[in-house]
Amino acid sequence: MTDVPESHPRYQSLHIRDRIVGGVEAGVTSPHGLIAHGRGEAYDYLLGEATGPWAQQAIEATAAWLLSARHPVISVNGNVAALVPEDLVRLSQVTGAPLEVNIFHTSSDREGAIAQHLREHGAERVLLPDGVAVLEGIDSNRRFVHPEGILLADVIFVPLEDGDRCAALRRLARDVLTVDLNPLSRTARTATVTVVDNVVRVLPLLITEIERRRAEPAASWKQSMDNFDNDQALQQAEGRIRSGERA
Amino acid sequence: MTDVPESHPRYQSLHIRDRIVGGVEAGVTSPHGLIAHGRGEAYDYLLGEATGPWAQQAIEATAAWLLSARHPVISVNGNVAALVPEDLVRLSQVTGAPLEVNIFHTSSDREGAIAQHLREHGAERVLLPDGVAVLEGIDSNRRFVHPEGILLADVIFVPLEDGDRCAALRRLARDVLTVDLNPLSRTARTATVTVVDNVVRVLPLLITEIERRRAEPAASWKQSMDNFDNDQALQQAEGRIRSGERA
Repeated sequence: MTDVPESHPRYQSLHIRDRIVGGVEAGVTSPHGLIAHGRGEAYDYLLGEATGPWAQQAIEATAAWLLSARHPVISVNGNVAALVPEDLVRLSQVTGAPLEVNIFHTSSDREGAIAQHLREHGAERVLLPDGVAVLEGIDSNRRFVHPEGILLADVIFVPLEDGDRCAALRRLARDVLTVDLNPLSRTARTATVTVVDNVVRVLPLLITEIERRRAEPAASWKQSMDNFDNDQALQQAEGRIRSGERA
Repeated sequence: MTDVPESHPRYQSLHIRDRIVGGVEAGVTSPHGLIAHGRGEAYDYLLGEATGPWAQQAIEATAAWLLSARHPVISVNGNVAALVPEDLVRLSQVTGAPLEVNIFHTSSDREGAIAQHLREHGAERVLLPDGVAVLEGIDSNRRFVHPEGILLADVIFVPLEDGDRCAALRRLARDVLTVDLNPLSRTARTATVTVVDNVVRVLPLLITEIERRRAEPAASWKQSMDNFDNDQALQQAEGRIRSGERA
């Protein structure tokens, strides 16, 4: 982004955009991912480009679910890897959940590039589909998983998820924790917990929340999980889009 | 898009998307342009993917401004060139306004590719920045212009514009006519006339409107210009997004 001056009022948004474009150049992100990113930008703009109370509550619930999980896994696609590689590695460290690459469009080259990108940002181990282990009920390339990762997981953190896969994971009795800027999307409506916010803002907050609460008793996490209402959080986010108030 | 049937409910949107992906492959559109396109898709969806009354009024005003201009210029970037090359050439013919390539991210290769793309779609002459002529008050690559084009223009039609440049052109006392799917953007709020609609739908309507009114007396155009209220048009478009009604 050498030719965009810092004085530009949308510098931050343009800077994030540059990361995702860099992801395409590095073979990490697909061109489809760029268009999806643009759609997210539009919703972020309408949401005020800030973490709303609905997102704060959902981040607290996400932290509680990850802390309570028996076998949590972090599912990584090309957009998330390009946007927040360091934060993904850090989240994996604080939760003990492995990073597993899982992408919509079949490409072992891109899967390898995503794993390499995560390693360059500090990941010690990255799970990839082994071509044998399969999650039933999913049509796309995303059914292929790692036998020690998503296949065994009880809780999956999967930001920027595809609606079909989210529904399939839910049918397989997995708890799905997602980040999605569109409160009306099928992913948002199907997930166990949906953080309607920009993943770039969410991950640092989520990591801090987990560090703050990791020493608490399990009953405290359970209370946060019981208190969270995903439908209500989505309604709040949608209300923000409709009301047009700015943060 | 060989595998998407015309019966697909999102055929039109997918077809348009194909044109912009083709633009990237041809070196006409930047990867950043794909993201901008995705953003537009989200707003278009929220607007009901149809030309609303606010846009119809703005198209009438845009026609009047172009017909009244002493030295109008059509500023072309990579997205517009990929999406509506024939319409740009036709608009140039009916208005006498030259086509001038002006892009946000510095790339003389891409400037050349855009000019070539327009020539392949019938343009006889395409203005390019000469590296000397500069428009004051703009930080990015877009300050470089052609000495006989934007530098001298009183009215600039510049669909899918960057907010900074729009503001700078307004400070330089240019009238700016734009097309922008986001009624809240700085471009939308700063321009003289903003058509909140998809450029693919706007250009044919604009060309027809200009042909219909070109024989009218200047006073009639002047009346259309005086009657148009950009803020009101933007409020109508925003109201449509906020209300969530579909067309």
